[in-house]
Parts: sequence; C-alpha cells; structure tokens
Amino acid sequence: MATAYAPHFIASQKAAAQTMSSPSLTMAQDELKKIAAYKAVEFVESGMVVGLGTGSTAKHAVDRIGELLQQGVLSTIVGIPTSMKTHEQALSVNIPLSDLDTHPVIDLAIDGADEVDPDLNLVKGRGGSLLREKMIEFASKKFVVIVDESKLVDYIGGSGLAMPVEVVPFCWKFTAQRLQLLFEEAGCVAELRTCPETGDPFVTDNRNYTIDLFFKKSIGDLKAAGDAILRLPGVVEHGLFVDMATVVIVAGDGGVTVKNKS
Amino acid sequence: MATAYAPHFIASQKAAAQTMSSPSLTMAQDELKKIAAYKAVEFVESGMVVGLGTGSTAKHAVDRIGELLQQGVLSTIVGIPTSMKTHEQALSVNIPLSDLDTHPVIDLAIDGADEVDPDLNLVKGRGGSLLREKMIEFASKKFVVIVDESKLVDYIGGSGLAMPVEVVPFCWKFTAQRLQLLFEEAGCVAELRTCPETGDPFVTDNRNYTIDLFFKKSIGDLKAAGDAILRLPGVVEHGLFVDMATVVIVAGDGGVTVKNKS
Repeated sequence: MATAYAPHFIASQKAAAQTMSSPSLTMAQDELKKIAAYKAVEFVESGMVVGLGTGSTAKHAVDRIGELLQQGVLSTIVGIPTSMKTHEQALSVNIPLSDLDTHPVIDLAIDGADEVDPDLNLVKGRGGSLLREKMIEFASKKFVVIVDESKLVDYIGGSGLAMPVEVVPFCWKFTAQRLQLLFEEAGCVAELRTCPETGDPFVTDNRNYTIDLFFKKSIGDLKAAGDAILRLPGVVEHGLFVDMATVVIVAGDGGVTVKNKS
Repeated sequence: MATAYAPHFIASQKAAAQTMSSPSLTMAQDELKKIAAYKAVEFVESGMVVGLGTGSTAKHAVDRIGELLQQGVLSTIVGIPTSMKTHEQALSVNIPLSDLDTHPVIDLAIDGADEVDPDLNLVKGRGGSLLREKMIEFASKKFVVIVDESKLVDYIGGSGLAMPVEVVPFCWKFTAQRLQLLFEEAGCVAELRTCPETGDPFVTDNRNYTIDLFFKKSIGDLKAAGDAILRLPGVVEHGLFVDMATVVIVAGDGGVTVKNKS
C-alpha cells in the first residue's frame, strides 16, 4: 500500500514545483497571498458565522481575523474550521469555534484555491482537506476565494498540477484505475498521494486516501465530469468546486482584482 | 453522538419488523431465500471470479458455493467478498478469496437486496455493507440478485423500510438534514442508524456512519435522485442500485421466478 499508483509526474508539474521552491519567488508569492487574504477579511462583519479555510493563503485570513478580534474591530465571530490544522490555528489566535452541526448556515467562508478558471470554477484540495472544505463552503451564503495570480488557469487542469479525489482506502487501486479510465481522452494519469517523508499513503482528516488526477487536456463539461466521478463507488468527494465561489480575490504584481460571479 | 437523529420510525416499518420477528414466518422466509440462492449458484462455473454478497440471503449462496467446491462440482473459483463478515464466512467454507485490486473484473456477483422494483432497480445496504457491495457489483459482468417475494415493491421506498446512505462521521447531523430536505416532497425522514445494543452510531466497514432515509411517496427519477444524493458533500455512497442487476431470482410460495433485465 506504500507505493504510489502510476508514479508518473508530468513535466509541467515538476517545473512548477521547482519554481515554487525558489526562496525569493516564494516570499513574493506569500506576500501576494497575504494581500488577497486581508482584502477578503474586509467582508467579515461582527456577529458572523465564518468558514475558515485551510492552506497557506487561508492561514493569513485566519490570523487576520484573530488580530481584528483582539483589537476589538470585530466581535462575536464564530469560526467553522475546514480542517484539524485550521482548528488548531484558529484556537491559537483565539477565534471562538463551532461546527456545521451547531451552525448549519454559514454567513461567509474564506478559503484559497489551487486553480481558478475564467468562470470562477475551482480546483481545491491539494492541501488535503477538500471534503470538509466543500461541506462548509457548500453551506455558506457567500464564498470568498483568495489566490495569488499564479492560480489563474485557462481551463481546469490547465496548471498541470493535481485535481484531487478523496477515496475510501478499500481497493483504492481499483478506484484509481476507474478514475484514470474515466478521463482517458484527457490523457489522465491517476496517482496515489503519499507522504514525502515515509512514502506511506497520505491519510485525510476523514481517514481516507487521495488520488491525484493529472490531465493533459481539458476535461470538458465540469458538472458532468463531477457527477461521473461521484458515480464511481469508492469515491468520497472530488476537488472540482463548480459554481461555488461568489467572489474571487486575486493578488498580483499589478495589484488586487476582485472578480464577482456573474 | 449516541442519539439517533430524527428518531421517528414510521408505522409501516414497525409493522414489518413485527411481522419479520414471527418465528414461523421467518423460517418460511429463510427457506425461500435458500431456494433463490441455490438457483443463483447454478450460474457459477468453474474458473470464475465471483462477487460474494452479504446478508441472510447471500449467506446461503456462499455456503452453497463452498459445498460445491468441496464436492468437486466446482473448481478454481476465486471469491471477492463484499464485507468483512462475508470474508470470514467464505473462509470458513474454504472458498479461495481475493480482492478488486487483484481481480478488477468479476465474472458474476450474487447478492440479496432489500427492495426490487418492476424495472429491477434495487435498494441495498440495510445489512450495512452497501459501499463494498456496490464497488464489487459495479465491477461485475453479470449481477444476479436473489430475494424472497417480500422484497418486491411497486416503487423504490415502497416497503416503508430504510434506503441507507453511507456518510462521513464529520458533521453527520448536517448531512442528515440536507438529505431529508432533498426529499422533502416525498415526506422523507432521515435517521442515524444506531447499534440496538448500545445506542451508539453503527459504524460501517469503512468506518463511516449510515443515515437511513424513509419515504412516504415515490422519489421519482432514480438516477437523478442518486446524483443529487452524491452531490451532497459528506455523502460517501447510497443504497440505490439503478440499472445494475442483470438477473433477479425471486422465490415465493408459487415457486421460483427468474427476471432478466430487458
């Protein structure tokens, strides 16, 4: 179980990973993420129930909300964390927390994304928390997405990086094969996500595995693709977030752009 | 977490449960199950990879396959069990076992069902193994369903008994509420399945929970209903098996009927 299924990294992914590991670029990119996150927190009002995202961009938003609570600029916020990691981070900055069972309606969720297409459809989940993120953002009246401009793509899958699918561990190889076959025409390669340190399968907060899909071409109609993925028994959830974002805040060298869902 | 969500048993369910606990009726019903199971095993040929179902009807088929292997009537069968329980039972009658990862194509699966409608669509999973059953039966060239005639319904949900949905434990109440809302027009009541002995949530082989849905009316288009259920984040799989059965063997007082998918 420790060996990755179809362990083929495609060239563009390797290139992107190398680019992102450059220290100066990473610092600049992190600054852009922070700018987008701070802009998103301007949407937060006292008394709101707020979905708290997971990942390097969302982290800035959580820190900022904590800061504004401490300064007394915001009050009576209830945070709904999208992962165990965010739960811990939010506690560390004193944001009062709850969950979906207690607060089934969320006023606003703020989270990053791995890809944003021109229609504001997203890929999410490279950070490993797609299921809880989707549950919480699905329950939100408004979903504000924060990205640096490197996340903008012409089409979903266009970055050459992973579109993750959460699957039950039971016979995951079979499910990975089915997923790869489903998107054969898009040149799909399916790969089990593993922990870099140990080579063991990466286990999600829900104790499932993740199959990363890499596409060489567009997969076409995203709603149809999402339904087809969900119809495979063994699939728990996928990282396509179609028609979910209400606002996308993009930080780039030229400043901050706010894109509203038309 | 130990308390059932929306703990309303509808009247017909109570009645059915009482009927089924009558000793003489149960014996007669078990005899019919056995007749159907034995008939199904006639489809098994030496050398086949066979999906082994779970539940009181499928149990007879597993026993019969073991018997025929021991007698030398069948040989070189590979069984793919649909649950840990069936795994143990099959081992006890010396059926060689494998899994979907090793045998991604299954020649024939035999399993029971909780409901069969006139188009041979099924409800399955009251026994608690719907996900593994669906994975294995989805991978089968031929899927033979075995039931006694009490399982025939005019429409899915028509027995008044549960249509189970496997969900992640994370915020299951929220998911149950969403499910109930989805089928509001069919008078749906959603209920967490619990262990009768302890009152704790029933945990599936995949460490998930089960939400049982009870309908007062037909839910209409089953494919659309299935897709809508799967689109709810938090849902892992549902017990609607639409267009999956190739043959349904029904044992009743009047004899055995074999229904083929048109």
